[in-house]
Amino acid sequence: LEHSKVKLQIMPQNISVEVRKGSILLEGIKEAGINIAASCGGQGVCGRCMVKIVDGKIQPEVDTILTEKERSEGYCLSCLAIVDGDVTVHIPAASVLENQAVLVDTHGDDIDRKIEVGHWKINPCVKRIHMKLPEPTLEDCISDLDRLKRGMSSDSVPYEKIHCGVNILKKLGGVLRDGEWEVTVTLMETSNWFEIVDIRQGDHREHIYGLAIDVGTTSIVVFLIDLVSGKKVGVASSYNKQAECGDDVITRMVYSQKKGGLEKLQSLVIGTINELTDKLLEEHKVSVENVDAVCFAGNTTMSHLLLGMNPKSIRQDPYIPGATHFPVFRPSDIELNINPFGLGYCLPCISSYVGGDITAGVLRSEIHKKEELTLLIDIGTNGEIVLGNKDWMMAASCSAGPAFEGGGVKNGMRAMNGAIEKVKEGENGEPICSAIGNEKPCGVCGSGIIDAISFLFLQGMIDGKGKIRTEKENKRVRDVDGILEYVLVFEEETAEGTGDIVLTEADIDNIIRAKGAIYAGFSVLLEEVGLTFNEIERFLIAGGLGNYLNIESAINIGLLPDIGVEKFHYIGNSSVMGAQLSLLSKNLMEEAEEIANSLTNLELSVKPVFMDKYMQALFIPNTNMNEFPSVQKAVEERG
Amino acid sequence: LEHSKVKLQIMPQNISVEVRKGSILLEGIKEAGINIAASCGGQGVCGRCMVKIVDGKIQPEVDTILTEKERSEGYCLSCLAIVDGDVTVHIPAASVLENQAVLVDTHGDDIDRKIEVGHWKINPCVKRIHMKLPEPTLEDCISDLDRLKRGMSSDSVPYEKIHCGVNILKKLGGVLRDGEWEVTVTLMETSNWFEIVDIRQGDHREHIYGLAIDVGTTSIVVFLIDLVSGKKVGVASSYNKQAECGDDVITRMVYSQKKGGLEKLQSLVIGTINELTDKLLEEHKVSVENVDAVCFAGNTTMSHLLLGMNPKSIRQDPYIPGATHFPVFRPSDIELNINPFGLGYCLPCISSYVGGDITAGVLRSEIHKKEELTLLIDIGTNGEIVLGNKDWMMAASCSAGPAFEGGGVKNGMRAMNGAIEKVKEGENGEPICSAIGNEKPCGVCGSGIIDAISFLFLQGMIDGKGKIRTEKENKRVRDVDGILEYVLVFEEETAEGTGDIVLTEADIDNIIRAKGAIYAGFSVLLEEVGLTFNEIERFLIAGGLGNYLNIESAINIGLLPDIGVEKFHYIGNSSVMGAQLSLLSKNLMEEAEEIANSLTNLELSVKPVFMDKYMQALFIPNTNMNEFPSVQKAVEERG
Repeated sequence: LEHSKVKLQIMPQNISVEVRKGSILLEGIKEAGINIAASCGGQGVCGRCMVKIVDGKIQPEVDTILTEKERSEGYCLSCLAIVDGDVTVHIPAASVLENQAVLVDTHGDDIDRKIEVGHWKINPCVKRIHMKLPEPTLEDCISDLDRLKRGMSSDSVPYEKIHCGVNILKKLGGVLRDGEWEVTVTLMETSNWFEIVDIRQGDHREHIYGLAIDVGTTSIVVFLIDLVSGKKVGVASSYNKQAECGDDVITRMVYSQKKGGLEKLQSLVIGTINELTDKLLEEHKVSVENVDAVCFAGNTTMSHLLLGMNPKSIRQDPYIPGATHFPVFRPSDIELNINPFGLGYCLPCISSYVGGDITAGVLRSEIHKKEELTLLIDIGTNGEIVLGNKDWMMAASCSAGPAFEGGGVKNGMRAMNGAIEKVKEGENGEPICSAIGNEKPCGVCGSGIIDAISFLFLQGMIDGKGKIRTEKENKRVRDVDGILEYVLVFEEETAEGTGDIVLTEADIDNIIRAKGAIYAGFSVLLEEVGLTFNEIERFLIAGGLGNYLNIESAINIGLLPDIGVEKFHYIGNSSVMGAQLSLLSKNLMEEAEEIANSLTNLELSVKPVFMDKYMQALFIPNTNMNEFPSVQKAVEERG
Repeated sequence: LEHSKVKLQIMPQNISVEVRKGSILLEGIKEAGINIAASCGGQGVCGRCMVKIVDGKIQPEVDTILTEKERSEGYCLSCLAIVDGDVTVHIPAASVLENQAVLVDTHGDDIDRKIEVGHWKINPCVKRIHMKLPEPTLEDCISDLDRLKRGMSSDSVPYEKIHCGVNILKKLGGVLRDGEWEVTVTLMETSNWFEIVDIRQGDHREHIYGLAIDVGTTSIVVFLIDLVSGKKVGVASSYNKQAECGDDVITRMVYSQKKGGLEKLQSLVIGTINELTDKLLEEHKVSVENVDAVCFAGNTTMSHLLLGMNPKSIRQDPYIPGATHFPVFRPSDIELNINPFGLGYCLPCISSYVGGDITAGVLRSEIHKKEELTLLIDIGTNGEIVLGNKDWMMAASCSAGPAFEGGGVKNGMRAMNGAIEKVKEGENGEPICSAIGNEKPCGVCGSGIIDAISFLFLQGMIDGKGKIRTEKENKRVRDVDGILEYVLVFEEETAEGTGDIVLTEADIDNIIRAKGAIYAGFSVLLEEVGLTFNEIERFLIAGGLGNYLNIESAINIGLLPDIGVEKFHYIGNSSVMGAQLSLLSKNLMEEAEEIANSLTNLELSVKPVFMDKYMQALFIPNTNMNEFPSVQKAVEERG
């Protein structure tokens, strides 16, 4: 009886599956093929996997996340609920990850143009060399390998530095003879030697591709690159399947310490990448054996998990990564589905919390080559910051928490279709919310939350501490279970099953703490080198949040410094673009190594001044209003 | 009914097994665990797998090898016979390989003594470095890998040349912390970089071993070497299990072209090595993970098969090997059962028919370092010759055929217990034959055949062309099926089931052609450099044949030049000793590479003069009697 089956009906998808009685509801929903958000990895603390029980029985759950109202409406956390009989559930749109394409910005197109005009030279460290070798005779009877090396060696490829492994030797004789001594060798240049990674009969110079991959904690973006022209042939992206083990790097690291956890995380991320690659190769009619190289950019934890390295020490004081520079490897070493004889490479990281994505960002934005003082920030659950120019560079990271990705925010969600990404003030002073994909909203993403807080602050609806003012009666303001909230969109305007979309004081508090940490990071980094915000000439914003971010709103809430909107530039997914660059030039690959070596990492947590700056920044826009003259002016104008 | 089982009874082992009716008799005997000689790989041409049907039914076989007498006595070739019902067979002792230990000579003991006195410096390319690393702190927070590299780098091991693969990175963090920052790294030095091949917690400097392995076509010898002292700890040897696919390199190469043949040959040789290694490690209480390196010396074909490389082109004009210099590899790449993170290395070959065993022989005998003009020969189925001194060296090979290993000789067998290894003249002019192990003889091995021919020639029983003289009546001379033969030992003195041990005119003819080819090789090599036999100062003989060889007999039949017995030195298994040397010093490993590069290979088959010299040598001792003054004198003295 323990193992008897019950029926699980899932709405609005209208899918039904049989599950074992006594199983976890979340698992049943996953079995039905629906990828549901579970930021905390099923610990019952993030509240993202909330579903509504329409009919049937679940065992009582104990959680501290849902409000009494939500419970009374039938909501429960699916990661804690146990299926106790036939059950019908309704899954709010914001909880579903499946079939939601990751939105890829197009800010990288200038890279292809710059490649075209020769701004970057194409010189991939993986090359194909085509040869017609003289047939051996009794007089010229050197070995197949020596003949091949003689044929391919040159001033730039010295004979004695050519290395050929047993795998290639095994097929060498057959390929040379079947191809009647006309062959194409794939050669990989490393810092100390040249490795023959593949050999095939005939001429294969034209067809050579590589993959540039941004391995994000949340999403994965793959560029298919033509290594001859250097240009992007196609793009594919999706959520990192690791999401089922938790939303952020910390939860993933915790998961990796479970039995089999590390292996599962590695296989999930490789699985995501292989699916995207298969799709791209099919779409562009590229055969697997013509994909010779792959370059990854990811944060330090993602890089470790990709290679199957235990990230344990990254999250324990004193926060030590296993490696920051990674060896080149065979794609087959990590079961990547491209030419098994190809080359795999991870962009070097700087420290435990400043990763290869930042190295990629510097490479792409050329901070290390320019006179101008540049600040680069990638805001995710961590804010990773680089400050510097061609003479010096410093990096730091500060833990922002998941608020900007919608985590810890009641109606928060990632930037996907249906997420409120913009909030403007209407003529009547009412908020006008617009959602991604012009759909009825089902939640609010980072940029929408920032807009909303800016709107509420300038309207005087919230004070500098983020507390909602209740002096004036307002239909949008109410008290739920003792917590004040502001209704951004009433139920009738939201997607089916969403209910009112609100911003609570707790949500605002989370955002203030997140922006405070990041602004404090900027401040300490500048102070460390004796500079001020006004000396920054370029302020670059990378990563997903920047795509929808309203710079003025971000200044208004005190996330970004008040230095004039014209200095801010959104550079898109610089992680994948940096990977693209190092894929297409050995020199750029070496440049990336040098960038990582020359970036001085500043550990903010050990600086007492960081806490001061953080406390100062726990105010909208900042305790030190002098730093925000334009905001002060706007507030004064509004009275 | 086709699949019905029948009983196979094997004598004198008295083992019985069930085999499928219709199966090959040889396969049934193998299934019973008896390793039977099958030089030709079961093609029905070598006659080595001959067995006697004592009782029962086999299907009529068609072969051209056995005499009518043998057939009438119930003998058949087991590789062609089909089991047609219950059958009892008797296997002649000479056909069994199983349980016959390979005889290892002890001529290498001077190596250990020379190592002791510092003639060779111990500096293995695989080293262990023991370190106590400082624990990371917030101030010293470089990655685990950087900490390790910082700890191990030195003037001789530059930081930027240290390479660490993903496999090591995966366990690095755990090992460092579990060992509380005290670790032992196994470092391999290659020509261009240093590879971290293993890391373990604690101090493991004392226990480090390597294997030096002679991969012979016939037999395999393994030395277990202490890499700290450089000395030999143990020796194990056995027949190369590849023997079941044929006796010589040519038959093996033919076998390798069958479907799955190459894989089978590789797995048989690795299987043999693993068995020997397991035995040695158990005997000397050495754990697998402490065996960090293995160095192989083998002929070119054996080296190819060991690495799984197709040897096809070696036997086809213009005789091209896949490689002569081989990359270092991981033992696990070829499923060798030692530390999977260790190092595998094959000594370089010179050409298709001058292999790594010869490079090893030069390294061991230091031809490349001495003033004296030295000739080194290793006689097996091929005669591999090196001539030279510290200023120049040339190599050549000539196909001797299997005669010196007992092949193509009616009662021929390898040098193992029961083989006649010596034939002397008794007081009455009768031959006195002594067998290895003081056993009753069951056949005659190379040195015995050479002695016998020398004896018969000096006695005047055979003429210069190897024809048996029939002018005088002799109870030992008889005509069988039109072929004259000389009885060395009558049946009553031989091992049970052997019958008379004879030498036929066909046998003598085979030996004359074999010795003719080798002597012609010497002659052409000398002529090529404008030297004569008398200028040779050292004449070194390596390999199995030399162990029992009577130098005078070899001169008498014209195999070795008539330059005075004092110049000849038997140096034993120089192949395994050369492997031992390159195992214990990186410099010697590099020396081996240089030896292979500096050895000029002379392709004898393209020299018209080779055929002239060969024709001249098809006579006992030689058409040109002036070259054999001592033989001429002995013949004259005997009248």
